[in-house]
Amino acid sequence: MKLHIAVLPGDGIGPEVTSQAVKVLKAIAMEFGHIFTFEYGLIGGAAIKKSGTALPEETLSICKKADTILFGAIGEPKYNFDPDAKVRPEQGLLKLRKELDLFANIRPVIAYEDLLNHSPLKNKCIKDTDIIIYRELSAGIYYGDKTLSEDGQSASDVCQYNRFEIERIAHLAFKAAQSRQRKLTLVDKANVLASSRLWRKVIMEMAPQYPNVTLDFYYIDNAAMQLILNPRQFDVILTENMFGDILSEEASVIVGSIGLLASASLGPKYAMFEPIHGAYSKATDKGIANPIASILSATMLLDHFGLLDEASLIRKAIKKSLKLHITTPDLNTKYDNISTSKVGDFIEDFINHPE
Amino acid sequence: MKLHIAVLPGDGIGPEVTSQAVKVLKAIAMEFGHIFTFEYGLIGGAAIKKSGTALPEETLSICKKADTILFGAIGEPKYNFDPDAKVRPEQGLLKLRKELDLFANIRPVIAYEDLLNHSPLKNKCIKDTDIIIYRELSAGIYYGDKTLSEDGQSASDVCQYNRFEIERIAHLAFKAAQSRQRKLTLVDKANVLASSRLWRKVIMEMAPQYPNVTLDFYYIDNAAMQLILNPRQFDVILTENMFGDILSEEASVIVGSIGLLASASLGPKYAMFEPIHGAYSKATDKGIANPIASILSATMLLDHFGLLDEASLIRKAIKKSLKLHITTPDLNTKYDNISTSKVGDFIEDFINHPE
Ligand SMILES: [Mg+2]
Ligand SMILES: [Mg+2]
Repeated sequence: MKLHIAVLPGDGIGPEVTSQAVKVLKAIAMEFGHIFTFEYGLIGGAAIKKSGTALPEETLSICKKADTILFGAIGEPKYNFDPDAKVRPEQGLLKLRKELDLFANIRPVIAYEDLLNHSPLKNKCIKDTDIIIYRELSAGIYYGDKTLSEDGQSASDVCQYNRFEIERIAHLAFKAAQSRQRKLTLVDKANVLASSRLWRKVIMEMAPQYPNVTLDFYYIDNAAMQLILNPRQFDVILTENMFGDILSEEASVIVGSIGLLASASLGPKYAMFEPIHGAYSKATDKGIANPIASILSATMLLDHFGLLDEASLIRKAIKKSLKLHITTPDLNTKYDNISTSKVGDFIEDFINHPE
Repeated sequence: MKLHIAVLPGDGIGPEVTSQAVKVLKAIAMEFGHIFTFEYGLIGGAAIKKSGTALPEETLSICKKADTILFGAIGEPKYNFDPDAKVRPEQGLLKLRKELDLFANIRPVIAYEDLLNHSPLKNKCIKDTDIIIYRELSAGIYYGDKTLSEDGQSASDVCQYNRFEIERIAHLAFKAAQSRQRKLTLVDKANVLASSRLWRKVIMEMAPQYPNVTLDFYYIDNAAMQLILNPRQFDVILTENMFGDILSEEASVIVGSIGLLASASLGPKYAMFEPIHGAYSKATDKGIANPIASILSATMLLDHFGLLDEASLIRKAIKKSLKLHITTPDLNTKYDNISTSKVGDFIEDFINHPE
């Protein structure tokens, strides 16, 4: 298969982890006889530095003409402490998602047997957890109108949803549930928010189309508790943009490290794959960033194009690396000198010479 | 001391747990020679049934002429599945908070030594956790304008904050930090939300007034993860209304049961004390509801009026009940027949005959 892949490494540890994912994709292409080509674009803080904008036109056009997109991370600490900054790295990612109409962010949360001890949760509580979170990505409060009063004394954000935005991701989530344990949990705050009540109403109206899926509902505050108390109760979680952001980052504690969580962002035309960890600037260029989330993103990319054997070979390599403690320091209790690129090298080697 | 206390038992398990708290307060009054009087008011689903409104005028006036308020819980499941309901139990509580200008909700999160095994978290991760959450309670998205388009296809909620609303709770939180470990963490989403940027700006401007307090900042998604990964890093958490709702319910996993978390809601004139668990209707009238959160709310009430010895005697009784497994089934691994009122009786007895 020929795939032209736009690569947006972004900020912080984005470039170092993304380069490991690219390395792995190249090994896969070689091993399976595919032709993968890569074209790089600037985004976020790196783009602001060069062009004054977080998403240059050129980057957008690279993405639009590619078959798919591999994304790194975004964000620079200096902007966090400047509440008045006019341009922000995060705008690049938000604008990209909007421009490409990436409305569904899909995040698997799996408790790896070899990593149970890394979780702050008791093994028996998380063992066999296998959740997939469907987070709406194109609307809600992150995109709603924002105001700051002229005197700077008051500010507001609007959370807005319409039926179409809810239905299109809900169909994906219902279908995912059908192919899994047939359980869908909607997370909202319908006892207080009008937008949440619309979510609940739309989902309840859709439910009869998926009669074999058991549907239940949690408020976000309760869900944040239940996800830790009893994660195995969940199969597919469907939720709006900000609640999905919160729950999926929280869910990383089940996996043992946020450095292991990958995601796919899908739209009607484009698909983008990215780790859920952010730029984690403190770790930049130290060789300690965990590349697994980025490599797993590449795996989701391969799945998306039906390259299932290829994806499963990478997953096998990752499991092997975990078993042998070929991991970065966030996960390593045995060796303290396994760098980001060493992990990538191991996985590359495994692909070249699988046992 | 004379205290006239408005009691609003509310819905679900509210009445049964509140009656245990009242029982304990009566024992305290007897033992220490105080005069506590109690006046009951309807709120929530119970009030809707009787009067068609979730907060009758009479209840409001009972609260306003009392010295303080003891609150149970609110909510009825039948409203949750009716997205079109015009009157909702929760409106009673939201309106009460607004009418009494209760702008600060304060929630202690303490890992009890005798309950470490009840948490899904590993003992070593939670041992000695002692956090207090300051949640803004009078503004934000729960109170902002709500719209539902005429065709029912689109809905919105507004999250709004002004400087005054931020400052008044922030002063309380900074002061609390000064009397504790001198660490304050603001939780926001300043990389995306305008209202969060205002929070951050105001807090940064206030910080020089509290030079001995170390201030740091987390985004809500990261905070939801950090609270589980390493709860001991937190001392005082300050945050807006909805983020506080989410984090404090999530934090209950540290304590081992949501049935143990109490809260105080303070305003310039009034103070109300309530468990953070909701109506939990499934458990209503089964004698299995944990009354400790409600009894701890009464303890916070006593603290508020400077009755520190009284409060500490109740806390001693609670610890003793936990040690002896005189607890409701949510916490009990030894006996399966200790009811809500049995727990209250034990604490009452302890107050009457402390060792
Ligand atoms: Mg996030
Ligand atoms: Mg709550």
